[in-house]
Amino acid sequence: MNNELKLYEHKAQYYETDQMGIIHHSNYIRWFEEARTDLLDSVGFGYDQMEESGIIIPVLAINCEYKSMVYYNQTVYIIPAVEFFNGIKLTLSYRVIDKVSGELRAYGESKHCFLNSNHRPVSLKKVNKPIYDLFENLVGKDMFTN
Amino acid sequence: MNNELKLYEHKAQYYETDQMGIIHHSNYIRWFEEARTDLLDSVGFGYDQMEESGIIIPVLAINCEYKSMVYYNQTVYIIPAVEFFNGIKLTLSYRVIDKVSGELRAYGESKHCFLNSNHRPVSLKKVNKPIYDLFENLVGKDMFTN
Amino acid sequence: MNNELKLYEHKAQYYETDQMGIIHHSNYIRWFEEARTDLLDSVGFGYDQMEESGIIIPVLAINCEYKSMVYYNQTVYIIPAVEFFNGIKLTLSYRVIDKVSGELRAYGESKHCFLNSNHRPVSLKKVNKPIYDLFENLVGKDMFTN
Amino acid sequence: MNNELKLYEHKAQYYETDQMGIIHHSNYIRWFEEARTDLLDSVGFGYDQMEESGIIIPVLAINCEYKSMVYYNQTVYIIPAVEFFNGIKLTLSYRVIDKVSGELRAYGESKHCFLNSNHRPVSLKKVNKPIYDLFENLVGKDMFTN
Repeated sequence: MNNELKLYEHKAQYYETDQMGIIHHSNYIRWFEEARTDLLDSVGFGYDQMEESGIIIPVLAINCEYKSMVYYNQTVYIIPAVEFFNGIKLTLSYRVIDKVSGELRAYGESKHCFLNSNHRPVSLKKVNKPIYDLFENLVGKDMFTN
Repeated sequence: MNNELKLYEHKAQYYETDQMGIIHHSNYIRWFEEARTDLLDSVGFGYDQMEESGIIIPVLAINCEYKSMVYYNQTVYIIPAVEFFNGIKLTLSYRVIDKVSGELRAYGESKHCFLNSNHRPVSLKKVNKPIYDLFENLVGKDMFTN
Repeated sequence: MNNELKLYEHKAQYYETDQMGIIHHSNYIRWFEEARTDLLDSVGFGYDQMEESGIIIPVLAINCEYKSMVYYNQTVYIIPAVEFFNGIKLTLSYRVIDKVSGELRAYGESKHCFLNSNHRPVSLKKVNKPIYDLFENLVGKDMFTN
Repeated sequence: MNNELKLYEHKAQYYETDQMGIIHHSNYIRWFEEARTDLLDSVGFGYDQMEESGIIIPVLAINCEYKSMVYYNQTVYIIPAVEFFNGIKLTLSYRVIDKVSGELRAYGESKHCFLNSNHRPVSLKKVNKPIYDLFENLVGKDMFTN
């Protein structure tokens, strides 16, 4: 495991279940966000820094493949990784892994761009090199097996 | 039924169920909000008017008694009523009633005050008589049996 | 518009907003489910029939592209369509369209299979021809422009 | 702090915010549930034991007073306490406290009864003395100040 980063955990809550007796599939999208904001926090681009920089990172697209079910009270790791980044576009992937068995529960991705405070797309390399470097530094890092 | 007001309906969604096979109790608090904003809309104090007036109506307290269960795909009426209003404080009640059987599913209340754009409590009677009159006009109206 | 089917509407609720002032992206996945269950209801495969038949239709994968933002109090149509069906697998697409402007807000898909009461994948053509025919009949139908 | 019990923490998530820029009030009801199930877990009446015993603890009523706002990314303690218990009825209270400042953010309660597997109310003292003793042992314990 990477020294700078700890695995993000989520314990499946009762209010996340549905009447099939499993965690409702929409919650995984929220878990992706939890892991994403946790990752950004841990590399120094948390909410305060984001506000200060005026850079917004909207969600352009998401997808999720459900591999096996998560049940109430089980804890999963949500492992984000930067799959693509060029300063203009960003793709993150997420593996949802059972904490006990290590089994893959789901795999998903989110696609993003970068907007300035006027909601115009920007190139981070041009407008904010330090933040560009933060993301550049994450590309290809595996936060689980290192 | 009151001429100006129609009953607010909500169809219980699958994502609102939990693994006991019923609608999770936290959703009722959201349904209260649905009915409350619908009521405000219908009397001419919808989101646009609220923004324009600069008046914010935060939730100070909520409560809910669960009388009988709501199941997936059932439709309920959520019937709001103004229980108390003096221009400074507002209490609304909500009856959740099964559309088919007319049975009471839940009864709850929300308490509110009025804030100006600086987030200071205000007396509507002093700062905005037209909005004061809107609420005053709702006191004691029964939106179900009229 | 198709004679048998009416457009599914959802009014964006206050509790669905986030602090960017827009509807949080995770809600679209729930809206897809609303439109999907509404579609199944309207063709005679609602929850009661599903329970009776013992056929479960889990979500295997979802995706969504966010084209433009939905704001509080706006009403959208969510238009489902069967993109693929062979009795073993099912893909539905969803267009989220602003009711007033007709603008596309989002486009997404969900992938499903069919399980029997023992949670084993089944071929609908073999185990339940009437339900097979229901879905077969929906393939290629456009619920918006007809 | 009580030796057997650790404080339950929740970090406010982005998807829990609303467009007023604060955590939406409905989430507190879910946080109460998080703290309640965590408490039950920690005293040996977690989900597995509950299933085994056949005892269900439905929510009969909830209330919440909002004292001050919780913002995105802030961590709160949710401190449950047994306010009343006689084997037939149970009342829990919850204090939501900012982890950094110690300020009270909200105070609420939930009321419960005990049902057997046939959904009939039971007296725990009569049908399950060990579980009765678990709750009895919690009455009046303050999980924050020892």
